[in-house]
Amino acid sequence: MAVYTEVSDSDIARFLSDYDVGELQSFRGIAEGVENTNYMVHTTTGPLILTLYEKRVSGGDLPFFLGLMEHLAKNGLSCPVPLRNKHGDNLSTLANRSAALVTFLEGFWLRAPAPRHCRIVGEALAKLHLAGSGFDMKRPNALGPQGWQSLFDTLGVDQINTIKDGLGETILAELETLHAMWPDDLETGVIHADLFPDNVFFLDDDLSGLIDFYFACNDAMAYDLAICLNAWCFEQDFSFNITKGQALLNGYEKVRPLSQNETAAMPTLARGAALRFLLTRCTDWLSTPPGALVKPHNPLDYLQRLQFHQTAKNIRDYGHNLRT
Amino acid sequence: MAVYTEVSDSDIARFLSDYDVGELQSFRGIAEGVENTNYMVHTTTGPLILTLYEKRVSGGDLPFFLGLMEHLAKNGLSCPVPLRNKHGDNLSTLANRSAALVTFLEGFWLRAPAPRHCRIVGEALAKLHLAGSGFDMKRPNALGPQGWQSLFDTLGVDQINTIKDGLGETILAELETLHAMWPDDLETGVIHADLFPDNVFFLDDDLSGLIDFYFACNDAMAYDLAICLNAWCFEQDFSFNITKGQALLNGYEKVRPLSQNETAAMPTLARGAALRFLLTRCTDWLSTPPGALVKPHNPLDYLQRLQFHQTAKNIRDYGHNLRT
Repeated sequence: MAVYTEVSDSDIARFLSDYDVGELQSFRGIAEGVENTNYMVHTTTGPLILTLYEKRVSGGDLPFFLGLMEHLAKNGLSCPVPLRNKHGDNLSTLANRSAALVTFLEGFWLRAPAPRHCRIVGEALAKLHLAGSGFDMKRPNALGPQGWQSLFDTLGVDQINTIKDGLGETILAELETLHAMWPDDLETGVIHADLFPDNVFFLDDDLSGLIDFYFACNDAMAYDLAICLNAWCFEQDFSFNITKGQALLNGYEKVRPLSQNETAAMPTLARGAALRFLLTRCTDWLSTPPGALVKPHNPLDYLQRLQFHQTAKNIRDYGHNLRT
Repeated sequence: MAVYTEVSDSDIARFLSDYDVGELQSFRGIAEGVENTNYMVHTTTGPLILTLYEKRVSGGDLPFFLGLMEHLAKNGLSCPVPLRNKHGDNLSTLANRSAALVTFLEGFWLRAPAPRHCRIVGEALAKLHLAGSGFDMKRPNALGPQGWQSLFDTLGVDQINTIKDGLGETILAELETLHAMWPDDLETGVIHADLFPDNVFFLDDDLSGLIDFYFACNDAMAYDLAICLNAWCFEQDFSFNITKGQALLNGYEKVRPLSQNETAAMPTLARGAALRFLLTRCTDWLSTPPGALVKPHNPLDYLQRLQFHQTAKNIRDYGHNLRT
């Protein structure tokens, strides 16, 4: 939520002169992106987003992220498109940082999505999975089961228990259960891996586009859908809204029907997704000094989601095949 | 440099429906304004800035600031224009805060202004002073000599000396000198009072507009010019660039010639302006906890400017009447 790197008008004008985007009209740092610095740039040809990549995004992954956005856009998915400069590169340097210029998407994310929006997100996620086939770069999921274990080992039971008594043991038990039952036979592809409401823009109730591909990787596609069940279908009080679950799953299957393996694995995948966000939130929570300006998200929100998934018997408990 | 107040898409759409500005297309929090929350809003009619006023801006002063911007724009000054809603108000409420919608100015502030820009700023400042006549609301300058004294008394010599040994005594002596010699016979009007480079937008080397009127008040117009001498004519090493001073003064006088009183008072006014920023920077410096994310400006930058002004014999030392 900050501008980490200030750029000057002359630096930005020089940077833009390498692209075929007209003349600089204005630029404003925008308070978005926890990881990177973003500027909204107006040129004589229209609005653009300029991103400067700060140290938390590994530079080696940038060609994957930018190449993916370009590939997905070419294959019909609505998302920001990285522009290529006069040297043919979609990645350049500004203020000693890797920097990219991408198209600006009108639209905004919905603070209170309704079931009809969940249906649209399900469709969009499936389209992303189909559009991703044929993208030939690879990136493993750093936040899969091995990644969860590393996060857990780094924090340790005792430190996690300072958040809530017994939370460390709960997570340890869940990790052991998931390691034993985690499926390895699911259809894989490119996944978004972070498709929360703030990464989906709508305009006039239609999808305007998906943003923020900086967790994208190769993994089980159904796991991406399980992340969305966590991200879109719980209410403020952490109750599961089965109407939203049904809409999300129906929307997805309208475009890409789930296999039997994927259907069977859904409660396990949903548990894994909840654990993934529980662990990263524990990490952020414990690394934030008291009194910091930006309050981290409460990890326990994901404990509550996890507990729901632990009680789910099968994908019907998420609204699958329920017809109204 | 932050978004203090998050607003939802439905709140912002409802707010905009009171204005004749078309439909909401997107909104992004922008990382500008130390005092307020600003969103860049795109509607079907174009870009706008939405400002939510946080507690540091006194609500009672808002009608003055917004009325002034409207008055100045009507009288030909380029600045953001507050829009009036369907009830005829330029001030409304959003997320429990006073809020205003203003036109968006293309252009950007210059990190390294040249003498030609100082000339343009001088002209613009004089135009502002002329355009301000006829504005019938009044606001005293809270940061005039009495205000400096209050800031000083609140901090105290000992606390100021923690910034630099002897600084408290230096400021005390300067306050006494300025109280004794501060002119009270100068032409008054509406002044901007904070016309630093980041509040002046340029586009293609032409002035695009002045922004941030939240220190504007009624005071000696020549004092506003003295603030600009401090803000525009010193180099990074705090040496005074007399070519810039000459350009600023010439630009100003092209539009509004200075009276003899104003000319005679300029070194004193420049000392006062340096002291004003020295004192507010001391206040910010001493109230910022160590390790804070936003580092305050170094107060001593203004001690160096003040020392230059103390040596100035008359306005010729700022480049006045020097012709190349």
